[in-house]
Amino acid sequence: MSEIAEAPRGGEMTDSPFLKQLAAVIRAEDSYGTWDEKSDSEIMAEFIVTREERRDIPIIGDPDPDVMWRIGKFYDAIGLMIEKDTGCMASQMQKMSHEGFGRIVLIAGKLVVVSKHLRDVHRFGFETYAKLAEAGEKLVADAVATIEQFPDAARA
Amino acid sequence: MSEIAEAPRGGEMTDSPFLKQLAAVIRAEDSYGTWDEKSDSEIMAEFIVTREERRDIPIIGDPDPDVMWRIGKFYDAIGLMIEKDTGCMASQMQKMSHEGFGRIVLIAGKLVVVSKHLRDVHRFGFETYAKLAEAGEKLVADAVATIEQFPDAARA
Repeated sequence: MSEIAEAPRGGEMTDSPFLKQLAAVIRAEDSYGTWDEKSDSEIMAEFIVTREERRDIPIIGDPDPDVMWRIGKFYDAIGLMIEKDTGCMASQMQKMSHEGFGRIVLIAGKLVVVSKHLRDVHRFGFETYAKLAEAGEKLVADAVATIEQFPDAARA
Repeated sequence: MSEIAEAPRGGEMTDSPFLKQLAAVIRAEDSYGTWDEKSDSEIMAEFIVTREERRDIPIIGDPDPDVMWRIGKFYDAIGLMIEKDTGCMASQMQKMSHEGFGRIVLIAGKLVVVSKHLRDVHRFGFETYAKLAEAGEKLVADAVATIEQFPDAARA
């Protein structure tokens, strides 16, 4: 009889520049190196929310400060990737309601390079590392395309 | 002997489209018409902060919710004037620190049409109605010029 190995939570770690950037953003807060022994997947474990976990998270009340922190780091990583690719520094602004709806923008010069409306902020997360990487890379690619479309506004 | 009349607080009301818009924005919250008898200058009296009053406002602690409300209304009025002049709807986002520093942007399409860094948010206000009108009209004029400079981004 062959054994069926259970897939690890979040699936396999993928080799993604976005995930490397996100891990670096998180490690930047670790001034004393207490996470040095942790792997990138351990560092980013809280960005994974499985289907079952999702269902168990209530969407009542103010979103948790930890969730807001994760969302901030996610978009910080997006902003840094955009800057690497285009040289345009992108700063983040958030607008969040108490009900977990919100909007996040990244602004470079006079250009809104990322604009994302969020809902169910309480449940912010991705089923797998692959999906986390894919979401981040898509946002970066779209932002770079927007800057290429409106280069003067981005540098204004 | 001639008497010296004391100047009214905030000076004379000036005939300004911005002040009319701001008064309308404020009156829009008065669902029951309790302010119908009040003049526009009474309605906007709290936007006036004289030099003496300014000195007396401490800049310690979180800015007062009333101040945040006034700042919101001020930029709502700016946004509506921009929409009247250009047809571009501008939505507001704020980022405010607990120390009273902050940034406000108005966004039309993918274009940041107003971007204002604030300090001493606690003391937000204008010495006179004329200065309030002037500040509003300058922001609107600059935003309209920005939209004319980047019309495609504003409509993206």
